Amino acid sequence: MRWAEGFIAVDWGTTNRRGYLIGSDGSLEQEMEDDQGILSVPPEGFPSAVAELRARLGDRPLLMAGMIGSNRGWVEARYVPTPAGLDDLAHQLTWAEPGFAAIIPGVSHSTPDRADVMRGEEVQILGAVATGMVSDHAMVCHPGTHNKWASVIGGRIASFRTVMTGELFNLLKEHSILADLLSHPAVADSSFELGVEHGLAHDDLTSELFAIRARTLLGRAPAEQAASYTSGLLIGNDLRIGLRAAPVGEIIVMGRPELTRLFAVALKVAGREAREIDGEEAFLAGVRKLAELIR
Amino acid sequence: MRWAEGFIAVDWGTTNRRGYLIGSDGSLEQEMEDDQGILSVPPEGFPSAVAELRARLGDRPLLMAGMIGSNRGWVEARYVPTPAGLDDLAHQLTWAEPGFAAIIPGVSHSTPDRADVMRGEEVQILGAVATGMVSDHAMVCHPGTHNKWASVIGGRIASFRTVMTGELFNLLKEHSILADLLSHPAVADSSFELGVEHGLAHDDLTSELFAIRARTLLGRAPAEQAASYTSGLLIGNDLRIGLRAAPVGEIIVMGRPELTRLFAVALKVAGREAREIDGEEAFLAGVRKLAELIR
Repeated sequence: MRWAEGFIAVDWGTTNRRGYLIGSDGSLEQEMEDDQGILSVPPEGFPSAVAELRARLGDRPLLMAGMIGSNRGWVEARYVPTPAGLDDLAHQLTWAEPGFAAIIPGVSHSTPDRADVMRGEEVQILGAVATGMVSDHAMVCHPGTHNKWASVIGGRIASFRTVMTGELFNLLKEHSILADLLSHPAVADSSFELGVEHGLAHDDLTSELFAIRARTLLGRAPAEQAASYTSGLLIGNDLRIGLRAAPVGEIIVMGRPELTRLFAVALKVAGREAREIDGEEAFLAGVRKLAELIR
Repeated sequence: MRWAEGFIAVDWGTTNRRGYLIGSDGSLEQEMEDDQGILSVPPEGFPSAVAELRARLGDRPLLMAGMIGSNRGWVEARYVPTPAGLDDLAHQLTWAEPGFAAIIPGVSHSTPDRADVMRGEEVQILGAVATGMVSDHAMVCHPGTHNKWASVIGGRIASFRTVMTGELFNLLKEHSILADLLSHPAVADSSFELGVEHGLAHDDLTSELFAIRARTLLGRAPAEQAASYTSGLLIGNDLRIGLRAAPVGEIIVMGRPELTRLFAVALKVAGREAREIDGEEAFLAGVRKLAELIR
């Protein structure tokens, strides 16, 4: 099998993709990132998007994760139900090109009163566990467009919950009555911390969002503070929901460093211990382990 | 003064405007509605937009309410602080044309921990109170882009709170990952009622919104039910916040009949008594009373 000669791992999301050429010894030989997310590829355009990727990184087998396996991606990949381990992912790949291009399944969580799905985060979370970056009993918070709070038990994703904080912030910033106010940068300053405190203590998000505008109109808060406060408010609200499944203990915050930083600051405001892990590093750990299981 | 010969009342909002020609005896002689909301009028275009209105309805004094008095409207009108009565509105008009075109002030509510504003709803609420449609001690729920929960005490708006339910539903419908699901019509059916129940009982809106998508992806709920469930969820969440200021008693639901209907059904699910009032009728009652106070 050609995987022993190395492979290309792709974290293929909605709006961008990252490709990594992994050598036969597991080393990272080359990497690329561009804006060819699945939404910018026409439905029949994936074979040529993949050919272009191989032209840049080498004619190697592909191991893909993320929205590439959604119903808008190349080939729809299944969801593995919780509790899900790395072996479950490896054994339920969907082959877009038999033996030569595999899509890693997502994970679903379904109980009588809840339903949830993830695509992409599972590789990072289970990769971090497999390489010891994260213990096999842990609570992982993975901020992004759709933040995932994942409970890891016995090395498997036992349950998880999505809070759509990132998407909501983007909707408000791009299309809402708060758009002007949110054009300022959001940073982890004292306004951010005030927002976190409000979000943690109050369950009135859809009302407090309007109050941000009212305070500015009435001259009670400067417009420049609104973006940081709103970011803090949304993240505090997210923590209030997510921390219910983790009343004590350290929280692992995994993902893009600029996002894990904001969540780590917010967790500190909540009086909780946080440890940040770079999502890219965790992704590479995950695909290396998966490639071993496929070989 | 020319008001005695009749006047034109305009409810001039963000995306549309409604004009009413009121005769000298207070009767409604003519009305019009178009999509010339303030956002479709260029900043210097209001005099000609008003001239066109008078060409259609008559060369009469204008009494205007709504976003026409915002910083994006014709002339910025002040906010009258709570507690605010009809007399306060009448005495603090902003004249865009001296003696001939007046903009009714909005109302602000400001306490150490809260800040809120309204423009337009105050005319309806105080008009309904002035004509006895609503008692002078009442809780009014006014759904729209930004739902207002207003506490009326002694015939004045004593306090109020905005919940941006309508805008959030529109953002989700037009721009979010739920957009496909929300293209179905939202109706007050059993899915709507289930959504209301969830919104009333749980403070996890930003998580449950994603669960709607997950349930559909996992085949646990038909896509056609998602819009009604989402509408119910948002309205139930709105009621959970708004009803805190009204633990007992009848709720007056005022506004466009298609919206008051949904909120009245949701209030029934919450075990609360609701009475619907047509916002247009309340607006006409308000401007008639205001015109008497100006004369």
